[in-house]
Amino acid sequence: MSLYKYICTKCSKEFDSVLIESKMIYLCPDCGSCKKNQPLKGVLTVEYDYDQLKSIYTKENFLSFTAGEIWLYPDLCPIDFNKIDKIDLEKLSLPANQILKYNVDGRELFFQDETRNPTYSYKDRASILVALKAKELGINEIAAASTGNAGSSLAGICARLGMTSHIFVPKNIPEAKRIQIQSYGANIYLVDGDYDQAFDLCLEVSSKNNWYNRNTAYNPLTIEGKKSAAYDIFINTKSELPDYIFVPVGDGVIISGIYKGFLELKKLELIDELPKLIAVQAEGSSAVVDYISSEVFEYKPANTIADSISAGAPRNLYMAANAVKESNGFGIKVNDDEILSSQKKLAHKTGLLVEPSCASTFAAYQKVKNKFEKDEKVMLLMTGSGLKDFEALKVWNEKPVAKSSEVWKSLLAQ
Amino acid sequence: MSLYKYICTKCSKEFDSVLIESKMIYLCPDCGSCKKNQPLKGVLTVEYDYDQLKSIYTKENFLSFTAGEIWLYPDLCPIDFNKIDKIDLEKLSLPANQILKYNVDGRELFFQDETRNPTYSYKDRASILVALKAKELGINEIAAASTGNAGSSLAGICARLGMTSHIFVPKNIPEAKRIQIQSYGANIYLVDGDYDQAFDLCLEVSSKNNWYNRNTAYNPLTIEGKKSAAYDIFINTKSELPDYIFVPVGDGVIISGIYKGFLELKKLELIDELPKLIAVQAEGSSAVVDYISSEVFEYKPANTIADSISAGAPRNLYMAANAVKESNGFGIKVNDDEILSSQKKLAHKTGLLVEPSCASTFAAYQKVKNKFEKDEKVMLLMTGSGLKDFEALKVWNEKPVAKSSEVWKSLLAQ
Repeated sequence: MSLYKYICTKCSKEFDSVLIESKMIYLCPDCGSCKKNQPLKGVLTVEYDYDQLKSIYTKENFLSFTAGEIWLYPDLCPIDFNKIDKIDLEKLSLPANQILKYNVDGRELFFQDETRNPTYSYKDRASILVALKAKELGINEIAAASTGNAGSSLAGICARLGMTSHIFVPKNIPEAKRIQIQSYGANIYLVDGDYDQAFDLCLEVSSKNNWYNRNTAYNPLTIEGKKSAAYDIFINTKSELPDYIFVPVGDGVIISGIYKGFLELKKLELIDELPKLIAVQAEGSSAVVDYISSEVFEYKPANTIADSISAGAPRNLYMAANAVKESNGFGIKVNDDEILSSQKKLAHKTGLLVEPSCASTFAAYQKVKNKFEKDEKVMLLMTGSGLKDFEALKVWNEKPVAKSSEVWKSLLAQ
Repeated sequence: MSLYKYICTKCSKEFDSVLIESKMIYLCPDCGSCKKNQPLKGVLTVEYDYDQLKSIYTKENFLSFTAGEIWLYPDLCPIDFNKIDKIDLEKLSLPANQILKYNVDGRELFFQDETRNPTYSYKDRASILVALKAKELGINEIAAASTGNAGSSLAGICARLGMTSHIFVPKNIPEAKRIQIQSYGANIYLVDGDYDQAFDLCLEVSSKNNWYNRNTAYNPLTIEGKKSAAYDIFINTKSELPDYIFVPVGDGVIISGIYKGFLELKKLELIDELPKLIAVQAEGSSAVVDYISSEVFEYKPANTIADSISAGAPRNLYMAANAVKESNGFGIKVNDDEILSSQKKLAHKTGLLVEPSCASTFAAYQKVKNKFEKDEKVMLLMTGSGLKDFEALKVWNEKPVAKSSEVWKSLLAQ
């Protein structure tokens, strides 16, 4: 079992992990705050004894792991795997072969493909870790507020493990997302209000009912779970990391997690340099990108077709902005038209059918591709399957007119 | 490169593979026939020199392969891999970890999970082989008639490889399937007629335009491609094969392919006994199951919610029926209500969200589960993701009523 502590990302105070977990504390007990339409403050993060772990996780050892199986490096996971059934772990592995390589418009592009995870999105990385922690704590019920993928992910992972999920969603949730959540047998609570109200309600009810809480960024294990893609990229590239990674950003948890993963690899002396992280947001939901340049946060309701990165108040704003700055990356915005046309171009050119949220990375790449040197490795993070958002696909796939066989024959003979 | 010939499944005549492939012959030149609303006659099948291959494919060697990568056993693939770019193969691997194991109602059940293939269905196994053969022949355009998954699979695989696809679909194709086909950039031809008319039109036009044809069962490589799941099950179970496999059956190509794969393993002396194959059909589309008991085929228009196994005239009827009989399996029918309630139960109990077609196997299993001994291994084949058929999920996931936070609080406090 791993030895780790929790550290506050705001006040840097350290906390004993047993204390934090047994009392189900999520934000920093000293300075944490969770306010309406505001990023969270005092988000906790897991810290290991990297100096000690260096001898265990040598490069050779780490590169021998199968990608997608977090239990292969138990000392870098805040889970006591002795308390988890092996048969449960087998249900949670991600595909090992996650990287696809394409020549697009004359340049080699790398895609980290998360669309084949158990519930077809990146969110599974967080849900898996949260569910395992609940199992370890002997808790069988987990709650989350969600606008879509986090909820369907938690619902699907809980179904795999025989656990109960409680998902609080705003009433304007896209239909396809709602149906995926319900399909996995989750208890769904449609809240007559927005995501913020669902978030607050979820915290209150789960605390009263002693349900473990998976609210994104609020539970530090969501960030911790999302770091594993960095490890997988390290394994699958055999340590030949990309120079740049385009990451779709909504609440900012994925980019924070990926940054943490790479930073840990550096602390373990497995890599010298981190990939530069490029935060991609929609023009109608750009709080993180705006904060990177202005260092000011101002709440604006989000409005974009890319619902998975729609967040007026990104819960993990400060960690996300820090990830971009510390990795020497940058932020970039794209509009909904660019997102949809990129979704189409990507599917046509690569066969990767992805959600608008991650198509945004391809839109952003096309805007700045001339900035990169020829020998620089560029990767795009594909966070969710296009089949999860049927409505977006409808926009650019109009029904063609039916014709008789005779008509088709003469048309196709020309 | 492998040495192989083609054999007619009806008249047993043998044909040179170079002749068949270079002239783009599909059915037996002597006895083959393709008639409206009839199963195909004279379907060809690929035959290797198994005696010679025994020394190459020892058990130890075979079990060392990674599942999902057909190029690891080139001598059992009718492809000249010297003519294929390695970078293309990397885009075509299936997830290696395909088997999930669950305790359902007190019994251990095995699931072969094909829902995470490149286009989320089993059909990719056929499309991949067909596309590689086209590449080998120097042909860049492939055509197929389809009611859904075969078309979206071919479209997606062609997009991955930079090839052009032409998909002929009947005008009543489910919207979600049509949109997936179009999303990958296929040329789609909506035929004012049924699947049979689309099938015939596709044959005629592709022959005239020199497009390679992927019509299911018609092109023997569709069956050949679908055999690889048998190999993968062998690899992933470390040769401890299931005693029974429930297979959803429409046109009968999947079950024919799986049977061929296991039979080859037996010819290579890698296994002693084949799993018993259980053909599952919907009551409204049961030609194969009916033929197994009556040995009579009579065309009836198919009608079931499980569109992926809806086939009034199963193209591969005779091979499919033979697979069931020779493996000592049996046929079984389930109705649409049973299919939908099984789809729901399966998603709730296992987190596997699958199409109605493969949920039929779970419905069938529940009907006959008392027949199996306690120590017998039972596997269900999951052939397509539930996200491919949004309409079916809508049926059993009604929109709940939105309530205010206050109302939810009081309800959840009780």
